Formats: sequence, structure tokens, C-alpha cells
Amino acid sequence: MSASLRRVLVLGCGLIGTSVALALRDAGVRVRLADRDARALRLAERMGAGLPYRPGDPAADVVVVATPPSAVPAVLREAQDRGLGAVYTDVASTKGRVLAEVEAAGCDLATYVPGHPMAGGESSGPGAARANLFAGRSWALCPHPATAPKALAAVGELVRLCGAERVVLTAGRHDRIAAVVSHAPHLVSAAIAARLADADGTTLSLVGQGLRDVTRIAAGAPGLWCDILGQNAEAVATVLEAVVEDLAKAAAALRSQGGHVDGPLADLLVRGNRGRDLIAGGDLSAPRRLAA
Amino acid sequence: MSASLRRVLVLGCGLIGTSVALALRDAGVRVRLADRDARALRLAERMGAGLPYRPGDPAADVVVVATPPSAVPAVLREAQDRGLGAVYTDVASTKGRVLAEVEAAGCDLATYVPGHPMAGGESSGPGAARANLFAGRSWALCPHPATAPKALAAVGELVRLCGAERVVLTAGRHDRIAAVVSHAPHLVSAAIAARLADADGTTLSLVGQGLRDVTRIAAGAPGLWCDILGQNAEAVATVLEAVVEDLAKAAAALRSQGGHVDGPLADLLVRGNRGRDLIAGGDLSAPRRLAA
Repeated sequence: MSASLRRVLVLGCGLIGTSVALALRDAGVRVRLADRDARALRLAERMGAGLPYRPGDPAADVVVVATPPSAVPAVLREAQDRGLGAVYTDVASTKGRVLAEVEAAGCDLATYVPGHPMAGGESSGPGAARANLFAGRSWALCPHPATAPKALAAVGELVRLCGAERVVLTAGRHDRIAAVVSHAPHLVSAAIAARLADADGTTLSLVGQGLRDVTRIAAGAPGLWCDILGQNAEAVATVLEAVVEDLAKAAAALRSQGGHVDGPLADLLVRGNRGRDLIAGGDLSAPRRLAA
Repeated sequence: MSASLRRVLVLGCGLIGTSVALALRDAGVRVRLADRDARALRLAERMGAGLPYRPGDPAADVVVVATPPSAVPAVLREAQDRGLGAVYTDVASTKGRVLAEVEAAGCDLATYVPGHPMAGGESSGPGAARANLFAGRSWALCPHPATAPKALAAVGELVRLCGAERVVLTAGRHDRIAAVVSHAPHLVSAAIAARLADADGTTLSLVGQGLRDVTRIAAGAPGLWCDILGQNAEAVATVLEAVVEDLAKAAAALRSQGGHVDGPLADLLVRGNRGRDLIAGGDLSAPRRLAA
């Protein structure tokens, strides 16, 4: 139970929205839900995520816009126009373009805190939601200079109640980081999985855990991911081009040197080791939970 | 306890060799061990993997050569010259070039069954070994036309005692499949992990489970992997070139179309979904455990 966060309205009952709702309900918050898809709304309600929003319900302390990125500006604008809450946030995977379009749409920036929980899953929809989806995960918050400190505090409290740790940084910085840690890896995982699109039984019989791990995120919904990638196009392209350069060099070394591959291949593998050590927490000297 | 497999000699106490030894000991087989690295040998012995080989020990029913691929021909030749066993196999991740070099080294092909258990781990050395490493996994066997049926049966029994399922196919087919399901994915995973090699604390604080999964295998030992990749150079290069083409197209689409990415991106994501479905077993109509 939170003193400052009693009522939350979640707009969008997908994986993230429903998980936020479930986590907040567990924390004693009164949650109201809305979704254009009546089936998704009913499923979220049956899962105990909250009651459907009814016109006339009291204004929420925080309204969570949990739609795909490109839908955020219009949904936020309408919610603010109708006065559905005191503070607003979203959970979209891209922030810079969303924020620019939110500004262009004439939304009130003082009450809006752009957000992005760094959690998800290869399954989508309310059926895949769970209350502990954000436990121990990071949750990026990217306030605009015009965002009121009170609004940031309210959304920070929501993040805390979901069990996540907030990381405050600019939208531009968030997008460059998200391209490296999430968006480009998604496409690369898809490119490996795509090699198996027509695999025969013998090939599949030799698949091991390594390939299963590398391709897990390739199960994501193409429509949602096209939206995310298009919203962060430049940053994602920059990361992809670096990956392409590394892999093209490796392929050329394998072609030209046959059994004697050293330079470019060893270099790539060693850099891969170094990155993996950092990601896996092998380098305990690195500051791993520092806000920007 | 196996009637036909009483004594096994494992040459090489790395992750795979020691895990084979542990699994066979659990099955009641008498295991002898050898390694040029006295520390690895001692550790494997202390883990209960078997006793060190002593000159004068009775010949083994099967000798397992558990060295990196490029060392197999010389180790096999020496073992056969010394008459260490009745039947020989190896566990190297590449098969075509190993087999060609084994032939060129004048080894006895009738008693040799090239093998490759489709299991491993990002950690190497005997300390990471475990008896159940192969449980439920596939184990490729690639007999030469000159391989005696009795030898294939003996190694098949060893695979069974390790809890694995044997998949019999040609060395060339194995290598093309291994390039797709293991070797190229390793380099692609490294290329993503390499983007994090100089990551700062804020970047690392936003790393989620997706990136951890995609980069898990990038922790593999560069020396061993240079050996593996060099031994399967052409097949790996072919897969990498296809990945590069897909990712370069995706990057170009993101650069040129900005927020409106459809064609190439959606195509790649949909093919990725299809491959992932097959890998994850989503398509239950596909024959998943058929030997070639």
C-alpha cells in the first residue's frame, strides 16, 4: 500500500500493461483498465489485473499508457484532454520520437514522464502477463525539462511498487542504449533464426541449447517490432552496421584463410568475451546499477 | 552397467571429455583418463571421473579422443599405434576436415567413428563438467564407409550410456548443419556482445534478459573457437554471408525509410518467427528426432 499512489489507470492490456496492473494490485493499488480490444480487457480483468474503467471513475494518481510506441501520442493527448489522471507515463520501448510527437501533439509535458521498463517476453498479450515481470529489472525514466518533479516522483513510486529499479536518463541516451541492448539484438536474433525457417528434421534434431538461447527473442511479434525499430531507426541502423562489418570481416577471413583464421576472428571473439563478461556481471568492479 | 562396454579411456579432460567420463562412471563403466595438463587430469580424477591411465592398463573397449578438432588426427594416430583400445571415437565440433586429416595421417578407419555430442557450455575445463551434460541431447555420429558396423555399435552404446540420442549422418552434412545451428551463431552472438565491450554503467544497468540470452554463448574460449571455425570455414562463411545480407538490408531500410519500415524488416522478422517456431518445437508436425 502506498500513501501517494492509490489509483492507477492502465490504458492497454497487453503483456506490459497487464503486468504493471497485476504488480500494482499486489501492492494494494486500485487499478482500472481500458483496451480497445474487448477480449484483451476481459482476459486482463479475469486475471485479477483490475476492473474496467468506467466514465465517471475518479481521476487516477497515475495513468499508464501501455500501447505500441506509435500510438502513445494520440492516446496520451486524449487521456489528458479527458482529465483521466494527475500524472501520465508510458512504457514504450523508444523514447525520443515518442517525446517529440507528444510535444507536437500539444500534450501537457509537466504531468508526463516518458518511461520504459526493461523487461518483456517473447509472448505478447495479457495471457503472458505476470505480477513479477519487473522484479529486480531496470525501468528507464526520461523526463523532459518541463516535467514537474512531483510527476517524476509519482512515476518513480509506481516503478518501486512494481519491484523495479528506476534509471533516469535523457530520451536520446535511452534510445542509443536501447538500440544496443535490445533493438539491434532483436534483429540479429531474427537473422539467425531465419536461417532455420526451412530446416529439415535432421537439422532440427541437432539443435542445442546455444541456438535456443540465441533465438529466444526472435519469437517477438513482427508488427510491434516493426513499430519499435522504425521509431529508433537511426540508432538501430548504426549498431546493425557495426555488426555487419564485424561479421563480413569474419566471413572474409574464413573464405580467404581457410584453416588459418587468426586476426579478425580472434579479435571478434575476444571483444565478444569482454562484452559478455560485462553483461553477465563477471566484472564486479563495473558500476552495474548507477543512474545517469 | 553395459555388457559390451566395460572399459573406456578418455584422452583429454576438458568439459566434454570429463563429462563423458562422469556419465560413463555413473553407468558402471571403468574409466581411465589422460591429459597433457596434469592439473586438469588431477581435477577430473578428484571429481570422480576415473583413474589416470597407466601404461600397461588393459586395452579399452572404446577410446574417446576429447581434444580440440585440430589435435584429433595426431592423438588418434598415436592411440591406435599404441593399441590403447578396440574402437575409437572423438567429440570434435567439426567432422569433415578431421576425417580427411585422420585418413591422411594413416589412421585405421575401420575402428574409428567420428562423433560430436550436441552439448557444451560457455565454461570450459573439467571444473564445468557434469554427468548429465548429454542427457536428452543429440550426438552426431559420422561413420566413414570403411567404419566397421561393430565399431559404430560400440560407440552407439557409449552415446546411449551418456543419456544422449544418436543421429547418424555424413561428415559433410554434419558440418553444414553445425555451421547453421552452432558455429555461425557463435560468431553472431560474439558480434552482439562485442558492442558492449566498452559499455558504461548506465548502459549495463539497462541490460535485460534478452541480451543475456543472445550473448550467453559468446563467453566461449576464443582459442578453441578459432580452431572450430577454421575447421569448418566454408560452411560457416556461407551462413555468415546470408546473415550479413539480411542485416545489411534491414539497416538500409531503417536508414532510408526512417519511421516507415515495412518490406525487408517485416520479412526478416517473419522468417525469424518461423525459424524460432521450429527450433522451439512450436511446429509439432515437424519430425524433430529423425536420424538421417
